[in-house]
Amino acid sequence: MNIVMLLYPGLTQLDLTGPFDVFARFPELQRHLAWKTLDPVTDSGGLRLLPSVTLAQCPPADILFVPGGPGQLALMEDGEVLDFLRRQAVGARYVTSVCTGSLVLAAAGLLAGRRATSHWLSLEQLRLFGVEPVDERVVVDGAVVTGAGVTSGIDFALTLVALLFGEPRARHAQLFMEYDPAPPFAGGTPRTSEPALAALIRAETAPFQQKRREAAQRAADALAAHAAGAVSLT
Amino acid sequence: MNIVMLLYPGLTQLDLTGPFDVFARFPELQRHLAWKTLDPVTDSGGLRLLPSVTLAQCPPADILFVPGGPGQLALMEDGEVLDFLRRQAVGARYVTSVCTGSLVLAAAGLLAGRRATSHWLSLEQLRLFGVEPVDERVVVDGAVVTGAGVTSGIDFALTLVALLFGEPRARHAQLFMEYDPAPPFAGGTPRTSEPALAALIRAETAPFQQKRREAAQRAADALAAHAAGAVSLT
Repeated sequence: MNIVMLLYPGLTQLDLTGPFDVFARFPELQRHLAWKTLDPVTDSGGLRLLPSVTLAQCPPADILFVPGGPGQLALMEDGEVLDFLRRQAVGARYVTSVCTGSLVLAAAGLLAGRRATSHWLSLEQLRLFGVEPVDERVVVDGAVVTGAGVTSGIDFALTLVALLFGEPRARHAQLFMEYDPAPPFAGGTPRTSEPALAALIRAETAPFQQKRREAAQRAADALAAHAAGAVSLT
Repeated sequence: MNIVMLLYPGLTQLDLTGPFDVFARFPELQRHLAWKTLDPVTDSGGLRLLPSVTLAQCPPADILFVPGGPGQLALMEDGEVLDFLRRQAVGARYVTSVCTGSLVLAAAGLLAGRRATSHWLSLEQLRLFGVEPVDERVVVDGAVVTGAGVTSGIDFALTLVALLFGEPRARHAQLFMEYDPAPPFAGGTPRTSEPALAALIRAETAPFQQKRREAAQRAADALAAHAAGAVSLT
């Protein structure tokens, strides 16, 4: 079973590395880190990771996965990447994302009419693509499974392996990873944080979020023009 | 402020990548991924990461960090690595680890008489080095801060940045990472799992854990012979 994980410059690496650790515990899952070249890819925090396969040579995905991060903005208007995702999605059993990866899937026309989630700062931008934003940590809508911001990738991946391999094996992986989280503070989501802190982060990120929204709008317009929203998942 | 993170073959990458994502949100923290060469390092799950500096050229650490993973076994008897850790620890404000990384710190003589934690399967092996095992997710004992298995790295790192930069900034990072975990199942620790599942994992890993224990015993004997347990942290 091939799991194809898109690895691109400016991703938030934990969006990918959290799920990767979960997937690596299931020998059935052949993991492919796909990008345009095999050169190292640098994440938004400066970590350098190596792709394992090019987009051109990537085998067909049983599970397609897209992480988020600031680099996601450029991907929404990158025809080569969007074509790759559309091609890979056709035969995939699950099309998945963490964080703003869902906006890339949406820009490829793969989420039209679906329920999905994203990082809390970007969740509403899904509407630009005709996607119903859902303020939950992991959202399963048929073949589409999406996780919210960054750290939700671990919850997302455990949910996905439970769908694929059953709950007992997912629990086995969870215990091996000692996943009994104990956040040092409350407030890891805007619903529970002090409103002033969420407002501060919204203000600090407003210029970038505005750019992201403009790129998403352009991507949505291009998608509508191409009528590519018609890609249907299995 | 230099944070030196040991990157070695056979680490469990999430031990490192979880904390890395937290640290990357603090521009004061210069992150150095140190290994013997600059060649790619492959984690126990097959992810390839690039070191940023060699052990020989690494700047002095303000914070020293060692992740765990099956490759940790060899490190406990690797004089070059143990010397590096001792040298780096002398001037460090915090000496830290996640998962079985604490056994490497212990083998370097840096944890003698301290309270520390580790992955639940290996926790008791700390006693071989005169370290008090503590069955908690994050343990702060003065300059020594340790996290339990794999996913505890996120809790560990948020605790550490709160010590370094204060709680408000740690909360800011936590909200940005949307760290409001919702494990799909209970039982992420042996205290809460079905006893049969923990027993199964103990049985499956018994041969490797025996090798790890033998290596730890040899390392403890070597440490006692060198009286290197006298390295004192600031």
